[in-house]
Amino acid sequence: MHHSEEKLASIRTSMKANAIDAFLISHTDPHLGENIPEHSRVIAWLTGFTGSVATLVVTDSFAGLWTDSRYYVQANNQLFASGFVLMKPGVSDKKDFIEWLVGNIKPGNRIALDGSTFSISHFKKIEKGTEGKGISIDIESNLISDFWSDRPPVSGSPAFDHPLAFCGKERAAKISEVRAEMKRLNVNYHLLTSVDDIMWLLNIRGNDVKYSPLLISFAIIGEEQILLFADENKIPLKIAMEFDKLDIVILPYEETAGMLSTLSAGSTILITPGTTSAALYNSIPAGMKITEEISIPTRLKAIKNKVEIENIGKVMVKDGVALTKFFIWIEQNSGSVLMSELSLTEKLNFLRSEQENYLGPSFSTITAYNEHGALPHYSATIDTDSFIGEDGILLIDSGGQYLDGTTDITRTISFGIPTAQQKKDFTLVLKGTISLASAKFPAGTRGYQLDIIARKALWEQGLNYGHGTGHGVGFCLNVHEGPQSISPGADTDSKTFIEPGMLISDEPAVYREGEYGIRIENLILCYEDEETEFGRFLKFDTISLCYIDKSLIDISLLEQKEVEWLNSYHTEVYEKLSPHLTSDEKKWLKDKTTVL
Amino acid sequence: MHHSEEKLASIRTSMKANAIDAFLISHTDPHLGENIPEHSRVIAWLTGFTGSVATLVVTDSFAGLWTDSRYYVQANNQLFASGFVLMKPGVSDKKDFIEWLVGNIKPGNRIALDGSTFSISHFKKIEKGTEGKGISIDIESNLISDFWSDRPPVSGSPAFDHPLAFCGKERAAKISEVRAEMKRLNVNYHLLTSVDDIMWLLNIRGNDVKYSPLLISFAIIGEEQILLFADENKIPLKIAMEFDKLDIVILPYEETAGMLSTLSAGSTILITPGTTSAALYNSIPAGMKITEEISIPTRLKAIKNKVEIENIGKVMVKDGVALTKFFIWIEQNSGSVLMSELSLTEKLNFLRSEQENYLGPSFSTITAYNEHGALPHYSATIDTDSFIGEDGILLIDSGGQYLDGTTDITRTISFGIPTAQQKKDFTLVLKGTISLASAKFPAGTRGYQLDIIARKALWEQGLNYGHGTGHGVGFCLNVHEGPQSISPGADTDSKTFIEPGMLISDEPAVYREGEYGIRIENLILCYEDEETEFGRFLKFDTISLCYIDKSLIDISLLEQKEVEWLNSYHTEVYEKLSPHLTSDEKKWLKDKTTVL
Repeated sequence: MHHSEEKLASIRTSMKANAIDAFLISHTDPHLGENIPEHSRVIAWLTGFTGSVATLVVTDSFAGLWTDSRYYVQANNQLFASGFVLMKPGVSDKKDFIEWLVGNIKPGNRIALDGSTFSISHFKKIEKGTEGKGISIDIESNLISDFWSDRPPVSGSPAFDHPLAFCGKERAAKISEVRAEMKRLNVNYHLLTSVDDIMWLLNIRGNDVKYSPLLISFAIIGEEQILLFADENKIPLKIAMEFDKLDIVILPYEETAGMLSTLSAGSTILITPGTTSAALYNSIPAGMKITEEISIPTRLKAIKNKVEIENIGKVMVKDGVALTKFFIWIEQNSGSVLMSELSLTEKLNFLRSEQENYLGPSFSTITAYNEHGALPHYSATIDTDSFIGEDGILLIDSGGQYLDGTTDITRTISFGIPTAQQKKDFTLVLKGTISLASAKFPAGTRGYQLDIIARKALWEQGLNYGHGTGHGVGFCLNVHEGPQSISPGADTDSKTFIEPGMLISDEPAVYREGEYGIRIENLILCYEDEETEFGRFLKFDTISLCYIDKSLIDISLLEQKEVEWLNSYHTEVYEKLSPHLTSDEKKWLKDKTTVL
Repeated sequence: MHHSEEKLASIRTSMKANAIDAFLISHTDPHLGENIPEHSRVIAWLTGFTGSVATLVVTDSFAGLWTDSRYYVQANNQLFASGFVLMKPGVSDKKDFIEWLVGNIKPGNRIALDGSTFSISHFKKIEKGTEGKGISIDIESNLISDFWSDRPPVSGSPAFDHPLAFCGKERAAKISEVRAEMKRLNVNYHLLTSVDDIMWLLNIRGNDVKYSPLLISFAIIGEEQILLFADENKIPLKIAMEFDKLDIVILPYEETAGMLSTLSAGSTILITPGTTSAALYNSIPAGMKITEEISIPTRLKAIKNKVEIENIGKVMVKDGVALTKFFIWIEQNSGSVLMSELSLTEKLNFLRSEQENYLGPSFSTITAYNEHGALPHYSATIDTDSFIGEDGILLIDSGGQYLDGTTDITRTISFGIPTAQQKKDFTLVLKGTISLASAKFPAGTRGYQLDIIARKALWEQGLNYGHGTGHGVGFCLNVHEGPQSISPGADTDSKTFIEPGMLISDEPAVYREGEYGIRIENLILCYEDEETEFGRFLKFDTISLCYIDKSLIDISLLEQKEVEWLNSYHTEVYEKLSPHLTSDEKKWLKDKTTVL
């Protein structure tokens, strides 16, 4: 019996013992974000699936996993013989997990879930869907703790100060801004559930989560005080003393719900439904007025300040130097040194780690050779690691956390002589990258409007990619940061106006299943362009700095202005990186960046 | 005292007498559509504003009119000295009429409106916004009838059959399709409130509304019967007998609400909240299950069938011939015959009326010279009529209702020598028209994704237009027909997938206030292009046939593929229209359509 199947059997036994008909598990922690500590990665432990989005539903006769389309191929592989089936809403006309649950649950049944890991939005949908059927929902169930003997502990590393030279704005100033917004929105309290919001507001960083410098915490901002719920032992005395001056009170993490329940029922609290758990929501006193909105820090921190923008510029140089050395190393050692996806990942991590103020990778590096590149979120493991051959396409999507900024960049390079199809695919993707990077658009434009700009050249040739074109990026925080997004679905994020100061990725792609994947990703920064009688117009500045493999370009497919963009970009890459390279490295980069 | 001010004073007196604090009036009829009979044009009568979208709120100290941005300039002019102020949500940071009402109504106040002319969506919003303030809403108020002495009567013209040769599908087949959809959606009844839905379903047309061949009616589709609520005297015996065979029962129009209230409370009814009035909604028996969705006929009729598509192709030839003769007449008589916006409108209507199966204009023709062209929905009147001079820009947006299809086309032409700015504006608009017309996109693409394609060339030069890019078009029905739309806001319409068989307008523009307006509009028909490993791809075919004024093109701004598009379009225009022209006319058109 497969390990996962054993675990599933134990869960079913326990469900029976507790009279549970449907048990729900979510891939998240009490903050409902994407980056979660190892301690909370229950779905990976239970099913083998390591993607960052997943929900499980288990009944006595069914065990299904829902994830998004980026992960379908990966999930199919990882779920093999796990006892769990992959559910694909839309694709095979199956429903999302709530619709499935509503359609399959029987009157009088009992549903169980851990209310601290399901958002109040999801919980309300489940409640609404099962209304009037005599169904009970137990939101305090956590069967998993009973079985998970080797569960990783929560990290014990302390938090640290994020200095003004990096973050550009005093915590007192940020707090005032947030309180001014609270006043405008007529709220007395603001519950912060996204940890990165708290890190930004208080100018601290932590070590609790892989890939993102977070100190696991909740916060309640009041009109005078801020309650910070976190492990007090992890907050250095110097920071605690500064907090004290600003009336920031540190309380145990476990007391968040309890403290929420003591707030005055006559006041108003601002919460963000997508990141507020059912457990926390249910602790808010009955009768207290609840304003449901995107959190204020989420909106404010999306607009990078001048100091942050300057720092990001410097980080891009460091990151570009590491990447250049990496690609030089590959080219000079290809054929003589055995390279694999994992060894290259390690090499790149090492080169980044030589840069100043480096903290670690900003997400699990994707080093994907040939057919592995067709899995948009592939991450090599011992089991899947592939050796790099003499021919083929290598896709590398990686990023670094630096004290002075966060990076995320994808380059696709060719070994040997690329095929005509590979060159065509690469060039069409490049046209998409350039097209979004060069876009000029009026203030008030939403992400979903811009998405097509990066796809148009691909669509014209009958190609497409199944994910969004761009995501927001944090500043020494989460590599995926809202509220903005450039994607086709008009959800809350892609409805956000793209505004000056927003940092966003530009990453069109083509994935040919079983063959290869091609993606080119740069970070672009929005800025004010001009004001005309038709209003304010905005543009993007491409700030990632790394050469683009010209051997993969079919120049006949490029328009003159695209060639000009690429030449100008390559000139900038050389000018900014070469001062930090040896003369041999300079020579190499000069060659890679000569004008077309 | 201005006439409108007298009427407003009378309303306020009557409000006082009836203890009404806020009186709401909507520019619509009980079908909540855009095309309404003269009998229902209360806002034009009351305020002088003739736009097709408007809502009024009157209190003792305030009288405001809300419309959409297309009408701001026109409303400003028409409301002058009317006692009504123009409210611009978004622009001057004012709210929509419901937000304004909610913000300004005082506890204990009484609101009055005619519930048959407000949608249930709007009514529910008003109710929700005023909840808990002790505010009463009288939805049976129609103060206006008391004052409107010269109110136009409802038309008495009979309906007529829309033959199979035109519509392409028997009414029995359409009814079966709708009932199959009802079954799939688990509904027993389907209330049809949009008159064009009923015309399409029953293959009839009427004469009750200007610009659209509609017989004012409601319908309830049951599993066996269809109840048609209309003036029985207007339905010819032959049609009534055919209806009888299909179990279509004709009942008096006034009995719609009464009959709704007798439906079995245990059944389910499908209604469309946007076009169902509060009055009708409130007649649905308590306890009856209500499914709120876009109507089934709206979805089905948006996909034109083969016969309709063939007919539209023929109609485009007729329409193009009329337009060609019109532009020839202008060119040959310019300088010798005195021309005005109104006289040109009449000339064009006359030329269309010479074509076979013509019923009348499909909307109020926009013939707009110079600065009038900057009003996107300008319609010349005796008071505004402008003579055409030797120089300048003329924008003509017009369309015809034919038994075999509906047209909508805009051309902008130049008198004298255009300025560089005019040529640049025109060429950028043309680039937008071509870009959307040439788009290739995957199945599942929504209108809001495509909108930017038509704007990009304008945005790059700091220009823009304040309306959507495209609307659906009916078949011998409303010139504006949902559900599809190509526009930036992700509302229900622009969220609709663009599907093969959909007919839609492609009309980017530039408006320079006080100077001129430039718009180029063609109708485009969506069709299947190819299926690749990335899915099905769709394209558009431009089906409107009329030359585009080359004297306004700055060819240096066009890309090669745009020149090719224009040349190929002009060749098609000449080939399809010339067989119907005299040899002199042919010669003229040949010259206008020579390749660039």
